[in-house]
Amino acid sequence: MTSWPPLIVASNRGPVTFERGHDGQLDAQRGSGGLVTALLGALQDAGGLWVAAAMSDGDREMVARSDGGQVDMGAFGATYRVRYLDIPPDIYDGYYNKISNGVLWFAHHYLWDTVRSPAFGDDIEEAWAQYVEVNRRFATALAEEGEAGGSEPAYLVQDYHLALVPRFLRELRPNALIAHFSHTSMAGPTYFRMLPADMRDQLLRGMLGADVLGFHSHAWAENFMLSARQVAGTRVDLARARITADGRDVAVRIHPISVDGRAMRETASTAEVRERRRELARWRGDARMILRVDRLELTKNIVRGFQAYELMLQRAPAWRTRVRFLAMLSPSRMDVPEYQEYAELSLAEAARINLEYGEDDWKPIEVRLRDDYIGALAAYGLYDVLFVNPVIDGMNLVAMEGPVLNRRQGVLVLSRNAGAHARLGRYAIGVNPFDLGEMSRALQTALEMPIDERTRRARGLSRLVLSNTAARWVRSQLEDLERARGRRVAAAGAAGTRARAS
Amino acid sequence: MTSWPPLIVASNRGPVTFERGHDGQLDAQRGSGGLVTALLGALQDAGGLWVAAAMSDGDREMVARSDGGQVDMGAFGATYRVRYLDIPPDIYDGYYNKISNGVLWFAHHYLWDTVRSPAFGDDIEEAWAQYVEVNRRFATALAEEGEAGGSEPAYLVQDYHLALVPRFLRELRPNALIAHFSHTSMAGPTYFRMLPADMRDQLLRGMLGADVLGFHSHAWAENFMLSARQVAGTRVDLARARITADGRDVAVRIHPISVDGRAMRETASTAEVRERRRELARWRGDARMILRVDRLELTKNIVRGFQAYELMLQRAPAWRTRVRFLAMLSPSRMDVPEYQEYAELSLAEAARINLEYGEDDWKPIEVRLRDDYIGALAAYGLYDVLFVNPVIDGMNLVAMEGPVLNRRQGVLVLSRNAGAHARLGRYAIGVNPFDLGEMSRALQTALEMPIDERTRRARGLSRLVLSNTAARWVRSQLEDLERARGRRVAAAGAAGTRARAS
Repeated sequence: MTSWPPLIVASNRGPVTFERGHDGQLDAQRGSGGLVTALLGALQDAGGLWVAAAMSDGDREMVARSDGGQVDMGAFGATYRVRYLDIPPDIYDGYYNKISNGVLWFAHHYLWDTVRSPAFGDDIEEAWAQYVEVNRRFATALAEEGEAGGSEPAYLVQDYHLALVPRFLRELRPNALIAHFSHTSMAGPTYFRMLPADMRDQLLRGMLGADVLGFHSHAWAENFMLSARQVAGTRVDLARARITADGRDVAVRIHPISVDGRAMRETASTAEVRERRRELARWRGDARMILRVDRLELTKNIVRGFQAYELMLQRAPAWRTRVRFLAMLSPSRMDVPEYQEYAELSLAEAARINLEYGEDDWKPIEVRLRDDYIGALAAYGLYDVLFVNPVIDGMNLVAMEGPVLNRRQGVLVLSRNAGAHARLGRYAIGVNPFDLGEMSRALQTALEMPIDERTRRARGLSRLVLSNTAARWVRSQLEDLERARGRRVAAAGAAGTRARAS
Repeated sequence: MTSWPPLIVASNRGPVTFERGHDGQLDAQRGSGGLVTALLGALQDAGGLWVAAAMSDGDREMVARSDGGQVDMGAFGATYRVRYLDIPPDIYDGYYNKISNGVLWFAHHYLWDTVRSPAFGDDIEEAWAQYVEVNRRFATALAEEGEAGGSEPAYLVQDYHLALVPRFLRELRPNALIAHFSHTSMAGPTYFRMLPADMRDQLLRGMLGADVLGFHSHAWAENFMLSARQVAGTRVDLARARITADGRDVAVRIHPISVDGRAMRETASTAEVRERRRELARWRGDARMILRVDRLELTKNIVRGFQAYELMLQRAPAWRTRVRFLAMLSPSRMDVPEYQEYAELSLAEAARINLEYGEDDWKPIEVRLRDDYIGALAAYGLYDVLFVNPVIDGMNLVAMEGPVLNRRQGVLVLSRNAGAHARLGRYAIGVNPFDLGEMSRALQTALEMPIDERTRRARGLSRLVLSNTAARWVRSQLEDLERARGRRVAAAGAAGTRARAS
């Protein structure tokens, strides 16, 4: 294995949050999720640095205390360092809530009710300036840290919050090795053009400052390239997934992220999860179980999911009383009116269906509304059908987590608009998330699938997920950057030869 | 000029509607609009045939009376024939209201509130079968008429209502010369994938049955080609705008339609229009005038247009009392709840702005809500700014009509998402229709533009429109079909040579 350059990761949210414990000391609480696990593993190996925005008062206190903003995690038993940027709350609000989550998330997931929204006015012009400001601060910090280190680091910049960082960082350090990874889906060019012209142009040029742009699936990479074609000074080779922007090469690469299947299996075998699993098994009884596990997110398509199930109960009434739909929904962004309304709509739809189809001892849909990761791990063991039907989704981790833990040869019904479909689709039943008819047929097909076929698919899914580790996802990106460095050295050599020859 | 083959036009709505007059006789009432004018001109020259759906009781009576469904328009002083298909109302409803206008129109114009709609269920599956059925009936009639004629006709199939006709007709007559023209915008591939998988696949394959596919602008052609790439058995050369589908060549061509500027100028000089123009000039007084003329259509972006004007009144208060915004809106599809709601929203927004900014002798926005073509012709003469800001629009004829009739060096503020922008953009002020800030600045810039600059632009616009006639639009399509015939003959010759050589 190659020895990697020093690593510097940048993301909006850092890998730990500092909170004051009962003893008055600041504790580091590690975030969960595949991204943190994957990147921390690589950082630990390399003794690298993670730059992020301070989230808590504890984070800000750590910033104030530290020398130049860096915190050595050695005191917390780890081998990496963090640097948290203390961004004033009003600037952070514009950058994070208004632009990142209020505009870019909506754009990349096609969430607008276009007849009415978006309508970009003064507030968005102001918030956009704040987004630019925060991206500049990140780039400045990253440049400082790169200067301070010995050898040239590899920068791994994460997601749509930091889309301008590659270019700003490139301006400060023209020879930096920069990868940017998009964890979301990407809007196609017609939809992306809904953004204010300057915002759209800056976002595209910002990302094009990187050497390598990573995406979870071909569809999102292609949507990006189609938009990039419209940026002046940019040539795009769709077939070779290569872009030339202002004379620089930008490689576009597909690296679907994975989950840490082995760690999940360990957790799933703890007493806590086993107990929850027994409870759920009693609740399920003899019925078959359809499971969904989602944040209560506009993209997750919860309402149409219930409606598709209803349509199945109409079309295949023999399944009434013989199936239970468990919807584990964790509240998300409940301070945003759209999310609050969507949560209410989802609950109302489940209630309506329960009223209409329920019988004395049979409730068609059971909604559990809380953040309950342990409960989800337990439920993954027990489903007959895992229903993952997002309107659109960068990747979708539930589609990978479920098959790793399931013990009943459960069938995965999966939206073709989830990035995960590109990887898992051949073992799943693919559905169009807008097509109630197709989803209802898929649920029925899944429930009635012969055991041999279910076994074959379930094995295929868990094998695929386990063979793609989070560590491999990081490694692929570092290999991309090494190749970019190689191309750049070769190009500089050729230019030097031409210069000498002339 | 080449001598053209016999022409057969197909569209949902025919060029005339038969209505019973006071004398009890059936009268033919000619439709207005550039399409009818353009195609009828060509049909008259060629003595061709127009196939359409019967709309009125009079149409249906003509079908019943006629021999084989053909009506010779000679009795009405014209040299072409029509054949109207008598489609049962419930089938027509599914084909026209539910699929064409309820699904395809929304898809191609990005109109869905994707978190909630569309949700395709039983009703749409049924309506889709009706769409297929009507398209089959059209194809059958077109094939019959082609068989009946002497030499091989050129088929000109119009718009999204008849997207399946090219393929169905091709199945019946493999060597037919078929052009299909899309008068709408086209959804990009990510958005188009929202349609049920089978519907999407059939629509793409249906259009690919043509020899030539025409669009108003490059953006729509490209969106189609990007979707076509995902159809199995199809190769797409984006750069050359050429598709190979099931071994057949399909050319993709851009032909922006025009308006009949000279005829409009004649009408505009009649006493009726002159009188209306004088009335409007009195109403306007010394103020500058911003004009919009639109169907009350979800795509037309009326509400954001008012809001952008409001933002200008806030940002440039000196314009208060010195400018009047005349919105001439003709009701459209008022039986559809979404349209009714949008109409109410538009009127409410204008009323709110008038209440908030109005003064004793100044009403900021004047809404005139009726179908009033004569009034529009009068108003075109008088505007200082013509505001055309559709969310998205296949072409947009208002942007062409205005400059032909305007007498005040009026400035065109035009959405970059209108097909017309590709043709007229360099003489217009382009705007993003979602960006209130940019639209408000554009309105102000237009109002304050120096006379020399306005004159240069106004001349450029009217010259461009007048030099592109409707007749030329049809001729280009016939030339495309001649080239397609040439390629096919050449290919058949080459195949024959190979066959003889082997």
